[in-house]
Amino acid sequence: MTGFADARRIEALIEGIDRFNATPGQGTTRLTYSPAYAQARNFVASQMVEAGLAVREDAVGNVFGRIEGTRPDLAPILVGSHLDSVPNGGRFDGPAGVVAGIETAFLFRDLGLRPERPVEVIAMIEEEGARFGGGLFGSRLLTGQVDPAMLEDLCDDDGISAAAAMRDYGLDPAGAAQAALAPGAIHAFLELHIEQGPVLEAEGRDIAIVDRIVGLAQLKVTVRGRAGHAGTTPMDQRRDALVGAVGILSQLPDLARQLGRDSVLTVGKMEVLPGGANVIPDHVWFTVDLRAPAEADVRQLIDMVRATAAHAQGNGLTCTVEQQLYAAPTPLSGQIHAALTGQADALGVSHRLMVSGAGHDAMIMAGVAPTGLIFVPSRGGISHAPEEWTDYVQLARGIDVIFATIRQMSNARPG
Amino acid sequence: MTGFADARRIEALIEGIDRFNATPGQGTTRLTYSPAYAQARNFVASQMVEAGLAVREDAVGNVFGRIEGTRPDLAPILVGSHLDSVPNGGRFDGPAGVVAGIETAFLFRDLGLRPERPVEVIAMIEEEGARFGGGLFGSRLLTGQVDPAMLEDLCDDDGISAAAAMRDYGLDPAGAAQAALAPGAIHAFLELHIEQGPVLEAEGRDIAIVDRIVGLAQLKVTVRGRAGHAGTTPMDQRRDALVGAVGILSQLPDLARQLGRDSVLTVGKMEVLPGGANVIPDHVWFTVDLRAPAEADVRQLIDMVRATAAHAQGNGLTCTVEQQLYAAPTPLSGQIHAALTGQADALGVSHRLMVSGAGHDAMIMAGVAPTGLIFVPSRGGISHAPEEWTDYVQLARGIDVIFATIRQMSNARPG
Repeated sequence: MTGFADARRIEALIEGIDRFNATPGQGTTRLTYSPAYAQARNFVASQMVEAGLAVREDAVGNVFGRIEGTRPDLAPILVGSHLDSVPNGGRFDGPAGVVAGIETAFLFRDLGLRPERPVEVIAMIEEEGARFGGGLFGSRLLTGQVDPAMLEDLCDDDGISAAAAMRDYGLDPAGAAQAALAPGAIHAFLELHIEQGPVLEAEGRDIAIVDRIVGLAQLKVTVRGRAGHAGTTPMDQRRDALVGAVGILSQLPDLARQLGRDSVLTVGKMEVLPGGANVIPDHVWFTVDLRAPAEADVRQLIDMVRATAAHAQGNGLTCTVEQQLYAAPTPLSGQIHAALTGQADALGVSHRLMVSGAGHDAMIMAGVAPTGLIFVPSRGGISHAPEEWTDYVQLARGIDVIFATIRQMSNARPG
Repeated sequence: MTGFADARRIEALIEGIDRFNATPGQGTTRLTYSPAYAQARNFVASQMVEAGLAVREDAVGNVFGRIEGTRPDLAPILVGSHLDSVPNGGRFDGPAGVVAGIETAFLFRDLGLRPERPVEVIAMIEEEGARFGGGLFGSRLLTGQVDPAMLEDLCDDDGISAAAAMRDYGLDPAGAAQAALAPGAIHAFLELHIEQGPVLEAEGRDIAIVDRIVGLAQLKVTVRGRAGHAGTTPMDQRRDALVGAVGILSQLPDLARQLGRDSVLTVGKMEVLPGGANVIPDHVWFTVDLRAPAEADVRQLIDMVRATAAHAQGNGLTCTVEQQLYAAPTPLSGQIHAALTGQADALGVSHRLMVSGAGHDAMIMAGVAPTGLIFVPSRGGISHAPEEWTDYVQLARGIDVIFATIRQMSNARPG
């Protein structure tokens, strides 16, 4: 069947937001509270108004557009995502979900639908943490998980605090705590996001319906040996920290492969010190990012990495493993999952179950309201890069599912 | 038998030089043309005068002290090393050889010896390349291997050119070419240096008599893959550049062990990009420093590294190998080697043959005159660190051999 969402309007909305970009020609850079962010926020608000929404901005800069319900006393369904980007990223990561909300509002307007339960579209700040280093910051403020005093401490690369940036942006950081939603304030949260991975494209599916966010841990492995001159230290008298580190590194990807069950393991950051081409390294450290849908698997992977590192001890080398981050898997709402699945089937939108390997605002919102999350395909699985792409027709199919689910959940009727 | 050199005078000379240090308490930092360098140069010149030498400074700051011969027309024997240090290094690397020359002059004075052939003690600038990045710079200027125009281009970390630093130091860079020695100007060059490796200490030998400087190559290996999100890219759909690099790295040390024949291989510098803990690396590069006494072995090691890197191609990864540096092994003088060996035997100084794994001023000087090089033990093999150490009694034994060899080569007689 033919869907509802208008791919050309979606394209205009995405491109409209993407005009506000600090690095044109080099991908999208829209850091929270920056001039480009303020302009994008104004554009989003204007489109919300055009779609018939009542617009307000909360105390930290999250923008809400409300479709009033016939029962305004009911807690609203919230739909949206974030408006900030990483440096030199793409145009879809975040805005695709904001546009899903706005297009839903346009469809309500165009179809003359009036919900019983209010619906609110949201554009959130600072999900990437690209400016102030705190990821998922907008949703964490919204759910009362951030001490507003932190706003004075978190600084960007130019030493500007989040509080100072808020003042420049026209907000009063002293009022930041008011952004926290009261218990029960939200009936449900729905988010559409790009997959940022290659699976949907590879399988030729329209969307993924996410049932949980993976659990993840980040470890820092440090190997210490003894420096020495590359020319004067015989091979059998070395305590080369890099040789020890490579002994560990060569085994790590297989740990995730052996464990299976959709676990992944990545070493993304590594430093070799002192870093002279003619000096035997005495200090090497690297990060290990490991993720799995099941919490027991996350814990098992941590143990496997620790055991592998322990084996690298000896021969004059020492090895330590620190756990820098741990987050248990986050289950999403089974009821909303069923609703999304039912609407996708009714629309003829092909779908698969997926565990989200990345954190999203949905992960935080799931702590305060039943939450649903769907993914649309990413071309080549690429994200956080100028090449990030989702065809607008594909995006429209995902938005159809979001729209139809909200229509159902809000008990909307032609008004 | 008892030696000639005076360990307490040697200690006073080393410590006298080491007072002039930009980082007291944090090792020795004496960069060429710096205030500390100028003061150390003045101290060295004053000690040369005290030992009865006629002192002059050449156009680039190398300091010479001459014991006139009974035949002043003969080309002199040059003995010495460099006076500069790496940042936060030790007190022996360089000064040990300068002090060997000065102590030799004191012994000539104390023993009332007069050489037939003139003897010149030299303290050279910028061997480490720690200020202007050009290693072996003093000896390369001395042997006419540096275009003086380069002095304007080579800059230190503060952007000060070598030419500007020379002017501050009281030298005219326009005259730098005058530092180049005329062909035949030097009869022989002798250098004493610390081993900077653990072999002499481990074997309990007094000195090493070096017969050649190793050949060396430096390669840069680059592996390119595809970036991706650490959480959303399944293990079997990755093109992880670090996994490819580790596949190469895990084989490299064994290449040198398999080849043997005193070859060594070191990876000292490595970068993993883009360098996010949650991003699959798309670009990894590392250096490979490889050295061997025989030129055929250097070439074979290069081929082995290239073949190993070629095997890592495929599965979406590409790998390139660039050769950034190549220096053939430098043979030193067999005649001087025999003279040093004979004097060591006569003095009861235990010795072994050694190939120098590091470059030294002797490597450059060997291009213009028959050259000899001896090493004294380094405690723990440590160098380029505050812990660098050689017992003064051990240093005195090495200086005895240098003194006795020069006495013989210069045909010195009680005058």
